[in-house]
Amino acid sequence: MTSSPRNPSTSGPPGHSTPRSGTASCTAAARPTTREASWPPCRRAAGWRPHRMRRAGGQCGACCCDVRCAEPSRRGHCDAPQAVEAVLRGGGGLRALNVKVLIEGEEEVLSPHLEDFLAAHASLLAADFALSADGGQVGEGRPSLTLGYRGAAGIEVQVGALARDVHSGMYGGAVQNPVRALAQLLGSMFNADGSVAVRGFYDRVRPITQADRDDILAYNYDEDEELKGGVGAVEAYGEEGFSSLERLWLRPTLEIVGFKGGHTGEGMKTIVPATAVAKLAARLVADQRPGEVVALLEAHIAAHHPPACNVTVRELGFAANPYSLDRASPVLATAAEVLREVLGAAPVHDRCGATIPALAAFQTLLGIDTVPFAFALPGDGPHAPDERVKLSMFHKGREAYVRLLHRLDGWGESGPGGPAEDRSEL
Amino acid sequence: MTSSPRNPSTSGPPGHSTPRSGTASCTAAARPTTREASWPPCRRAAGWRPHRMRRAGGQCGACCCDVRCAEPSRRGHCDAPQAVEAVLRGGGGLRALNVKVLIEGEEEVLSPHLEDFLAAHASLLAADFALSADGGQVGEGRPSLTLGYRGAAGIEVQVGALARDVHSGMYGGAVQNPVRALAQLLGSMFNADGSVAVRGFYDRVRPITQADRDDILAYNYDEDEELKGGVGAVEAYGEEGFSSLERLWLRPTLEIVGFKGGHTGEGMKTIVPATAVAKLAARLVADQRPGEVVALLEAHIAAHHPPACNVTVRELGFAANPYSLDRASPVLATAAEVLREVLGAAPVHDRCGATIPALAAFQTLLGIDTVPFAFALPGDGPHAPDERVKLSMFHKGREAYVRLLHRLDGWGESGPGGPAEDRSEL
Repeated sequence: MTSSPRNPSTSGPPGHSTPRSGTASCTAAARPTTREASWPPCRRAAGWRPHRMRRAGGQCGACCCDVRCAEPSRRGHCDAPQAVEAVLRGGGGLRALNVKVLIEGEEEVLSPHLEDFLAAHASLLAADFALSADGGQVGEGRPSLTLGYRGAAGIEVQVGALARDVHSGMYGGAVQNPVRALAQLLGSMFNADGSVAVRGFYDRVRPITQADRDDILAYNYDEDEELKGGVGAVEAYGEEGFSSLERLWLRPTLEIVGFKGGHTGEGMKTIVPATAVAKLAARLVADQRPGEVVALLEAHIAAHHPPACNVTVRELGFAANPYSLDRASPVLATAAEVLREVLGAAPVHDRCGATIPALAAFQTLLGIDTVPFAFALPGDGPHAPDERVKLSMFHKGREAYVRLLHRLDGWGESGPGGPAEDRSEL
Repeated sequence: MTSSPRNPSTSGPPGHSTPRSGTASCTAAARPTTREASWPPCRRAAGWRPHRMRRAGGQCGACCCDVRCAEPSRRGHCDAPQAVEAVLRGGGGLRALNVKVLIEGEEEVLSPHLEDFLAAHASLLAADFALSADGGQVGEGRPSLTLGYRGAAGIEVQVGALARDVHSGMYGGAVQNPVRALAQLLGSMFNADGSVAVRGFYDRVRPITQADRDDILAYNYDEDEELKGGVGAVEAYGEEGFSSLERLWLRPTLEIVGFKGGHTGEGMKTIVPATAVAKLAARLVADQRPGEVVALLEAHIAAHHPPACNVTVRELGFAANPYSLDRASPVLATAAEVLREVLGAAPVHDRCGATIPALAAFQTLLGIDTVPFAFALPGDGPHAPDERVKLSMFHKGREAYVRLLHRLDGWGESGPGGPAEDRSEL
């Protein structure tokens, strides 16, 4: 989180911390607090070790993000603070840029405590804009700046029709089968054209603009390579009338994440199951809101309630607003210049189908936009046991952060777009 | 299996046995072979013990049927042979009735080897009619004779769309979700009125006759007690236009026995699952055939094949023809007389929604009808760990078998309906 001196705020460590999040802020004069030794003690899961560089063919193995630990265990969480530190140490610090660093350890579980934290410390965290180190680039020579992330909403639907599983011969045909009832209920949520049949689901969705289409064209998405080659999809599939990137970037989805009911082991067990359960996860786009979407799903379920059974809907704490960044943001243009310098090409604008709740929370509660400025590559396997970092990208990421901070530092004298001095030492 | 002397057949033990089935036949002159000591060795599952009488409040705890063991471990398998033995020992044997006993240990797994065995030994097993000890009575003072059992057909449907589970944010919306595809496919198999939507599914089903309706009226089924009280059903539910007993006795069903796909544990896992699987079990009525029904299901799946995924159908060896007994059978009338004498009321005719494959196999391969003559009560908990036998019904069952065998023995002199001497010693 970066703040220009035109909107100064209190410096020094905040008086508040939760077990799962830590904040640190510094000015040009203050000693940076981003070194590992300064991190508060954390509960470290058995077998997890702090981030260590282990070189293997120009790559660095990085342990996965441990959400129980505020330690900077993912690479994006390292290069940005280290870059700030490098700027402050190497070049005598920033002249006119007040930098605040907020590290939050619950991103993988949709940041359930972040909004309360932001609301409680809004003035302390006030800033003109924010940078996020979570995300990545299309390729080492193909820079990109991400304009948006989808939001999230999720529910669990449980259907019960019997006190216990019963013999399909003795009772089959005379009682409701909850697995059938749930399959029919879920089936009613989708149209034959691949769209979601829940009334009102698309009401808030923004139309796709020419600028969006230009972004997609520039991105040059290879559907076969990404879907068939990448994850072994039988073929691309989705809402008719939209391309794959339109579906992933600009359209909401409703996925059945899981379904379970009855006997699913080997062979046959001739029962009518007593219960069935499914989990649904929606990915939302601007200007959808998770609470509204859950209400639409509940209304659909009420209107399509199967006979002779009880249906229970439960929210799963899976809720986040979508995030969309204004293309006119001057920080975006400055970030694009830096990426062009460091990665050797002008960046394209992309979007991400996944969710980073912090960005929408900053926008809503603090009134500031975030530019995702991150350097993971598609093959880095985020969340996988063998997650990795390409060392050249790690160094380029740090260089880019140093350049960007210096460029933004120049704003303090001449405003956005004014001259900036490159004082990168990396 | 009982054979009148008008159709004599070879006596003595058959030359063939399989590890899972044993046969024994006897004439009036031969020593009966139904005592426990005469059973062939069998593989007994750990913890299983032979049937022992353990009195508790006038009931006898009976161990469940162990399908790997030919031992007479279920009560119905005991009282009929013991009754035969009692007749032969107590009264000097039968005068003109040739009795063959066939015990088969695979009934609970739909008798996969029985048809081959019957075909190979058809002449040895030739008889005028058969009696089956599998089944029961409506109540101790409410006798019944069962006119039919439903058949069975089963398949497993697997849907795959991806090489592995993928991130619902990164891919959701651009690839098929196999759980959704399977839910839609299964949903397409049912109509809103509760009937099965698979084309041709009801083509072979016999219309319900006035005699069937009279049986149902006489049975005096208490839907609330049986369904809500008995198994905790929210309410009765099934094919519109039919009563619960019509649905259970005379209409085929298609049940989704189980469905599994994706994350079904606690909380949310934001994936698009790679695969989903469901098991389907149909209960068939005369004159449906399992092979034909499987072909109809396969045709439906082919016609409703969801896009962008692979669908695999696998048969599960769950196949049996339905069985229906002619009301005009003279054995049925004789059995009714005996039940009236022993249980104190004229029996009603009922049907069973479950499946006993042997009865249809006897009818098809040996050309003989079977009268189910059995004495379990509804509360005996067949297959449950605490399965039980009411001792008074055990004794009444043996008495009824003795009376029936003597009554049928009389046919040898005067034909069906002729005078019979009651020589019950029990």
